[in-house]
Amino acid sequence: MRRFTFWLVAVATMAACIALIAPAPGRADGQPSAPYVTVMPHGYRDWRWISSAHEAGNLNSLGAVLGNDTAIKAYREGKFPFPDGTIIAALHYRNVPSDENNNVFGQAQSFVPGLPTNIQFMVKDSKKYSATGGWGFATFVDGKPADAASMKSCFPCHEMAKDTDLVFTHYAP
Amino acid sequence: MRRFTFWLVAVATMAACIALIAPAPGRADGQPSAPYVTVMPHGYRDWRWISSAHEAGNLNSLGAVLGNDTAIKAYREGKFPFPDGTIIAALHYRNVPSDENNNVFGQAQSFVPGLPTNIQFMVKDSKKYSATGGWGFATFVDGKPADAASMKSCFPCHEMAKDTDLVFTHYAP
Repeated sequence: MRRFTFWLVAVATMAACIALIAPAPGRADGQPSAPYVTVMPHGYRDWRWISSAHEAGNLNSLGAVLGNDTAIKAYREGKFPFPDGTIIAALHYRNVPSDENNNVFGQAQSFVPGLPTNIQFMVKDSKKYSATGGWGFATFVDGKPADAASMKSCFPCHEMAKDTDLVFTHYAP
Repeated sequence: MRRFTFWLVAVATMAACIALIAPAPGRADGQPSAPYVTVMPHGYRDWRWISSAHEAGNLNSLGAVLGNDTAIKAYREGKFPFPDGTIIAALHYRNVPSDENNNVFGQAQSFVPGLPTNIQFMVKDSKKYSATGGWGFATFVDGKPADAASMKSCFPCHEMAKDTDLVFTHYAP
């Protein structure tokens, strides 16, 4: 099965960090903010699994990337660019040790999702989000969307995945 | 949302290791083998996501646990024991660094699923698998079921999760 890419786990914290030093769009730098996603896509927890992801270091994250039917179809057929209507969700949690698993193992080696940290989305709408490669980006923490300033770094990072329509995560067979 | 448990990632290698020192059931120890699952459940790759799991150390595994509709419903409703018809799948891959993600980060911290290692299942059928707590266990490598000897260690490990019907993995919210 062919594999493609989409990567959101790492961008989560990177976006937040960059936001700390970047001027707020539409204010300090005089540029209007590109549109991004501020309404949580419905039903994402029922979507199918694309892949898992673990970020070590300061992020210390463990999560999963899920896709709606349009996303899954495009991944499996290997069609680029992803069609309008594609939505990809990245569910992030703290990467925490599992005491009960480690008790079975007899050593500390098992890690599972702990408390949720954020949920990120990429929503494909080539017209609405034409300023950011046809993708609307989103980060929700406790169900609340991130502000425009912190979202400004999503597109520049994802542009590094031009060959795969700005999507980093591979589809796990 | 309540959380339950089911843990297969670690058991994969543990089962294989124990099999190396355990007598082959139905042969050396004179005991017949308990029935286990030898036919791959259909459609598991379309099931919904329960959680992700990372095993460090020698296992070096990253994967996901998926459930059929019966499993997801039971998890979300918090009903024990899981009803007959429940099937839970654990998809395991090598935990490998992602060069493309790390290039964006500027440091090595991102890990993604690499080559598949095995797929494990727990199939609930309280009559058929009454000898192993109502669960039929399965391990498939390259689509082929494990032999009876290597499956003998599944039930004793899962018995440690008696409070959650022998299931270790928590449902990620």
